[in-house]
Amino acid sequence: MKRVLLTVAYDGTAYHGWQVQKNGETIESVLNRQLSALFQEPIRVIGASRTDSGVHALGNVAVFDTSSRMPADRISYALNQWLPLDIRIQDSIQVEDDFHPRKAACTKYYEYLILNREFELPHLRLNAHFLRRKLDVKRMQEACPYFLGEHDFKSFCSIHTQAESTVRTIYSLTVEEAEGLIRIRVSGNGFLYNMVRILAGTLIEIGQGEREPEELQGILEARDRQAAGPTAPARGLTLLGMVYEGEKREKSGEIFKFSLDTRGLV
Amino acid sequence: MKRVLLTVAYDGTAYHGWQVQKNGETIESVLNRQLSALFQEPIRVIGASRTDSGVHALGNVAVFDTSSRMPADRISYALNQWLPLDIRIQDSIQVEDDFHPRKAACTKYYEYLILNREFELPHLRLNAHFLRRKLDVKRMQEACPYFLGEHDFKSFCSIHTQAESTVRTIYSLTVEEAEGLIRIRVSGNGFLYNMVRILAGTLIEIGQGEREPEELQGILEARDRQAAGPTAPARGLTLLGMVYEGEKREKSGEIFKFSLDTRGLV
Repeated sequence: MKRVLLTVAYDGTAYHGWQVQKNGETIESVLNRQLSALFQEPIRVIGASRTDSGVHALGNVAVFDTSSRMPADRISYALNQWLPLDIRIQDSIQVEDDFHPRKAACTKYYEYLILNREFELPHLRLNAHFLRRKLDVKRMQEACPYFLGEHDFKSFCSIHTQAESTVRTIYSLTVEEAEGLIRIRVSGNGFLYNMVRILAGTLIEIGQGEREPEELQGILEARDRQAAGPTAPARGLTLLGMVYEGEKREKSGEIFKFSLDTRGLV
Repeated sequence: MKRVLLTVAYDGTAYHGWQVQKNGETIESVLNRQLSALFQEPIRVIGASRTDSGVHALGNVAVFDTSSRMPADRISYALNQWLPLDIRIQDSIQVEDDFHPRKAACTKYYEYLILNREFELPHLRLNAHFLRRKLDVKRMQEACPYFLGEHDFKSFCSIHTQAESTVRTIYSLTVEEAEGLIRIRVSGNGFLYNMVRILAGTLIEIGQGEREPEELQGILEARDRQAAGPTAPARGLTLLGMVYEGEKREKSGEIFKFSLDTRGLV
């Protein structure tokens, strides 16, 4: 048996999110089905980020165990033959048998796209949230520093969360605009259920002048979902990828560094 | 009656091209049907570029005549309510009653996208041609000058053309690569049936080392479709827009300049 790590890119439009569900196709269920067919053995992947219905990814991560003798780096080519065009494996490598993509420490990178112009553009209809009303990007940029560092993000978490702790650390948050396309980019050591979409929805209210950047401190302190803005639509959100960096002690006793960056092209 | 000009953006994936057909939905037929419903009178648009099945546009042009009293600049908002998300009107203005988008002199701008990397990307699956084999962009750039200026492009025209003359003028042709995405951009005073796609297919052969840039002179002189490369797939092609510039003599005798640029955001 060996453990294989897949870097998975997908357009989430046609799927009910990542996680297997009773009703509705999901990214995880497609991977389980096609990997089991490819290797003629029952295979279940373990995903790193359980993205919501309609959310996209360039570099999500999944691992699975197989007894197949196929070299790990060939699995990406073989599996893509069995997958629909809106799911593409970007890389496949062998990892330690005990590597767990949700338990290993990592930094996650997300992007939220807002098309902010007079009319929608057909080629961005699946990947960007459209808003005609002009946003004040400078105000949104002024709000970013309030999110940086370690905070209790309970106000920015769906009430349906199952997380024990709502404390997370945000390393970077930027808002940039070019030709009517606004890019919100955020990185952190983990994100709560709907956290990036609520963060985007709150930044949008600030850009619309409905809230002041200074209000964010109070919103965070409230630890109350009602205090923050609405959850922005799923289609604007893309998981760009994740970076795993750590040390591992081998049975031999020697320590080696482990590093993996799945951030795909945008 | 007034003549209205529409700037039309669309994702061509789901359509059998621009021009009305007996079987299969087209951009033109959707516009005719929805405009007729909106204004409660039979309306037929005249398109500037009859794009092929699967080809996209950011700034195609269509004109139509209506007796409606709706201000021309409001028509874009009203019509978009009736259109699917893969067709979006970007602008609507009133033009001279005799303005004809195919007879008026203009410069057309096209882009052909090639995703040239190890694996396809889901979010580009509808708008770029995927090629794994690495292309030599420098060779493609060396080939560009041969196309510039006025030439008989018979070798770069589908044998099914109905054009009397196959002479056209190309003003600019560039090839640029960034993160595995190759952009071929071309502008000219008009393009023959499949001309941009055959041009792209020939540049791809040069990038693959199957032809030398110097061969282009002979290919042009052959005036034979067989001499050029294959027709590149439709999905990689987007009509960026067109620029109309001219002078018009009014009944009063005075001459004024007419200028229109429909190049949309990319």
